Amino acid sequence: MEPASILADLFILFAAAKILGELFEHFGQPAVVGELLAGVLVGPHVFGWISEGGGSEVLELLAELGVVILLFTVGLETSIRELRQVGRSALVVGSLGVILPFALGVGLMASLGYDQGDVLFVAAALTATSVGVTARVFKDLSAIKIPPAQVVLGAAVVDDILALLVLAVVTGIAAGSFSTIQIVSLLGVIAAFLGVVLLAGPRVVRRLREFAHLPIIPGSPLAFAMLLTLGLAALSETIGLAAIIGAFLAGLIFEFRKQEVVTQVEPIYEFLVPFFFAVTGTHLDPGVFTQVDILGLSMAVTAIAVVTKLAGGYFGALSLGRRDALLVGTGMIPRGEVGLIVASIGLGRGIIGTDLFGVVLVMTVITTVVTPPFLAPMIRRRPPDEKKAKRRRD
Amino acid sequence: MEPASILADLFILFAAAKILGELFEHFGQPAVVGELLAGVLVGPHVFGWISEGGGSEVLELLAELGVVILLFTVGLETSIRELRQVGRSALVVGSLGVILPFALGVGLMASLGYDQGDVLFVAAALTATSVGVTARVFKDLSAIKIPPAQVVLGAAVVDDILALLVLAVVTGIAAGSFSTIQIVSLLGVIAAFLGVVLLAGPRVVRRLREFAHLPIIPGSPLAFAMLLTLGLAALSETIGLAAIIGAFLAGLIFEFRKQEVVTQVEPIYEFLVPFFFAVTGTHLDPGVFTQVDILGLSMAVTAIAVVTKLAGGYFGALSLGRRDALLVGTGMIPRGEVGLIVASIGLGRGIIGTDLFGVVLVMTVITTVVTPPFLAPMIRRRPPDEKKAKRRRD
Repeated sequence: MEPASILADLFILFAAAKILGELFEHFGQPAVVGELLAGVLVGPHVFGWISEGGGSEVLELLAELGVVILLFTVGLETSIRELRQVGRSALVVGSLGVILPFALGVGLMASLGYDQGDVLFVAAALTATSVGVTARVFKDLSAIKIPPAQVVLGAAVVDDILALLVLAVVTGIAAGSFSTIQIVSLLGVIAAFLGVVLLAGPRVVRRLREFAHLPIIPGSPLAFAMLLTLGLAALSETIGLAAIIGAFLAGLIFEFRKQEVVTQVEPIYEFLVPFFFAVTGTHLDPGVFTQVDILGLSMAVTAIAVVTKLAGGYFGALSLGRRDALLVGTGMIPRGEVGLIVASIGLGRGIIGTDLFGVVLVMTVITTVVTPPFLAPMIRRRPPDEKKAKRRRD
Repeated sequence: MEPASILADLFILFAAAKILGELFEHFGQPAVVGELLAGVLVGPHVFGWISEGGGSEVLELLAELGVVILLFTVGLETSIRELRQVGRSALVVGSLGVILPFALGVGLMASLGYDQGDVLFVAAALTATSVGVTARVFKDLSAIKIPPAQVVLGAAVVDDILALLVLAVVTGIAAGSFSTIQIVSLLGVIAAFLGVVLLAGPRVVRRLREFAHLPIIPGSPLAFAMLLTLGLAALSETIGLAAIIGAFLAGLIFEFRKQEVVTQVEPIYEFLVPFFFAVTGTHLDPGVFTQVDILGLSMAVTAIAVVTKLAGGYFGALSLGRRDALLVGTGMIPRGEVGLIVASIGLGRGIIGTDLFGVVLVMTVITTVVTPPFLAPMIRRRPPDEKKAKRRRD
C-alpha cells in the first residue's frame, strides 16, 4: 500500500550507492565515500531523483536499520578483552572529545552574544561523535582490529554517555529545572544498562544454548542475533543513548554459533548498510555554501567541531604514538545523528531557532561526509611494523 | 531521528513472529501461521504492544520489502521452463480466478441493491490473489517445485494482470470516462513489460557478466540481484501491477553466480520476510466479528471470495488430478494487498464508503490469515507417488 515511489526511491538510492561505491573502490577509495556522494547526488538538493526528501520517515528507518546492522557487525569483530586493553585511552579520548567541543562551543557562542539557551544547545550538539561512518571506513579497509580503531570504538561509547549527560544537564538548565537527582538517576540507569549487558550479557547468551531445545527459542542463531541487536538497540534508545551503542554491545557479547552468524549477517549488511550512507548523503545541501547569512557561523562551528575532536583524540591517544593518535582524532570527528537529535530537542522546545538548527545540520553533515576521504589514506599509510603487530593478533 | 518506539516495535514484532513461528513449526505447522498470529496478537486490536497502528508507513515499507524478497526467492527456485509446462493450467486458473469472483461479486452486490460504483469496486476487489502467503507455505514445506505450486505461481501472474485490467475498466466506468484506447494501451504496456523481461531479460542478465570488469558494475552478485529485484518491483508497481510480480520475475530470470545468491539471500529472507506476515497480522481486528452491522455482508463477501477462487483453481487445474486441483484452488484464496489497493482507490475517489472498505478489509485479512492452516496439511498429505515424481525432477 506504499506509493510506487518508495520502491523506486530504494532502487535509485541502492543503484547509485552501489555504482559509486564500486567506482570509488576501483580507485582505491573506501566504498562508503561513494555511497555518501551517491546520496548527495540523487537527493533533493542536487538531481532530486528520489521523490521523498531527506526527512522521509521510511527512508530514515531503513537507514537506521542499516547503521544498527553495521554497528552489530563491528561489535561482532571486536572482543571485550581487546577493548579493555585500550580502555584507558578510550576513556580519555571520549572525555576530552566531549569537554573540549562543549567548552569551545560555549566560548564561541557566548562571545558572539547569543543567549544562554542558544549557547548551551549548540555547544551540546557539538559533543557526541557518531561512530557509524568511521567504523565503516575501518571495516571497508579491514582494519577494525588495529588499536586506533579499538580506541575509537571504545571512546564512542564513553563519548555517547557523556554527551547524554551533557544533554540532560543542558535541558535541565534551559528549562530552569536542573536537578542533581535526575542526573544521578540517569547515571544510575546507564550504569545498570552497561553493567547488566556487559557483565551478565555474555553469560546469559552462553547459557541460552542450554534452552535451545525449548520450542519457543529460535533455532537459528541469526534470528537470535537479530533479536538481541534490535532489543539492545531499542533499549539503548529508550534510556537516551544512541541505538547504535546498543547494537554495538549486542555484537560485542554475542556468542552463539558466532561463525555462522558472521557469515549470515554479511548479505544483510550488503543490502541494508548502503541505505544508511546514501540517506545520510541526501541531507547534504551543497547550496548551503552560498547562503552567506549562516555560512560564517556554520563554518566557525564546523571548524570548532573538527579541531576539538581532533585535539581530544590526539592528546587522549598519544600513548599509541603520534600517527595513530592523529588517526583516532580524525576518526572521532563525524557527528551524525546525535548532534541533530540535540538540536531537534532545542528546536522542538523553542530554545533555539531554525537558523541555529541549520548551523548544527551543516556541521553534522560536513563532519560526517568529509571525514572518510581523509581517514582512509591515513589507515592505509600506517607503517608496516604496526600492521604486522595487527596481523599477529588476528 | 526515529522515535525510540520504532526499533522497539520492530523488536516486538520480530520476537513475537520468531517465537510463535518456532512454536508452530515444533507442532508441525508452517512458521508463517505463527508469524501471522504474532502480528494479530501484538497488534493494535489485541494486546496493542506496538506503538504504531497497522497503517504505519514505516512498518508497511518493511513489510513490502519482506514480501518482495520472498517473491524474489520463490522466483529463484522456479524455472521459466517449469512454469511453461504448467502454462495452460495457470492461464485457465488465473482467468477463472478473476472472472468467477467478479461475476459473483457483481451478482451479490447488485442483488443487495447497491449502486453501480459500489458493485463494481467490491467485485473488482475480489479478483486479485496475493500470492505471498501461499508461496511462503509452499516454501516452508519445501514444496515450491511441486506442480500445483507452479500452477499457483503462474496463475498469480495471469490473475494480477487480469485484475489490473478489471480495475482499469471499473475505474473508467465509475468515472464515466471508459475508454477502450486506455485499456488497449494498458494491455500494450503490460505485454511490453512481460515481453522485455521474460524474453530479453535472461539474455541481458547473462551478458552482463561480460561487463563485470567495468568499475561501475557491482562485483557482488547479491548487489546485482537486489538491484534487479528492486528495479523490476518498482517498474511493475509503476505500470500498475503488484510489486511482488516484478520481484518474482526478477528471481525467475536471475542467472549470475546463482548458487551464491541463493545462499546469500537466505539471511535477508530470514530477517525481513517475517515482518511482512507479522505486519499483515496486525491488520486483523478480531473485534470485527462482533460488529453485527457489517458482519453479515463481510461474511457473504468473504464466502464468495473463498468459494470462487476455490472453484476457479479446482476446475482450472483438474488436469493435475482432483487432489492437486483442490490444492491449487486453496492456494489461490488469499487476497492480501491487491484487494485493499482497489478498495483504497474506490474510497479515495469517494466511490465507496468506509463501511464497504471495512468489508473488503475483513475479506482480505480473513482469506490471507485463514488459508495457511488449511493449505499446509493438504501439501503434507499429498500421496507419495506424486512426491516421488517431484523428487525425480529435483
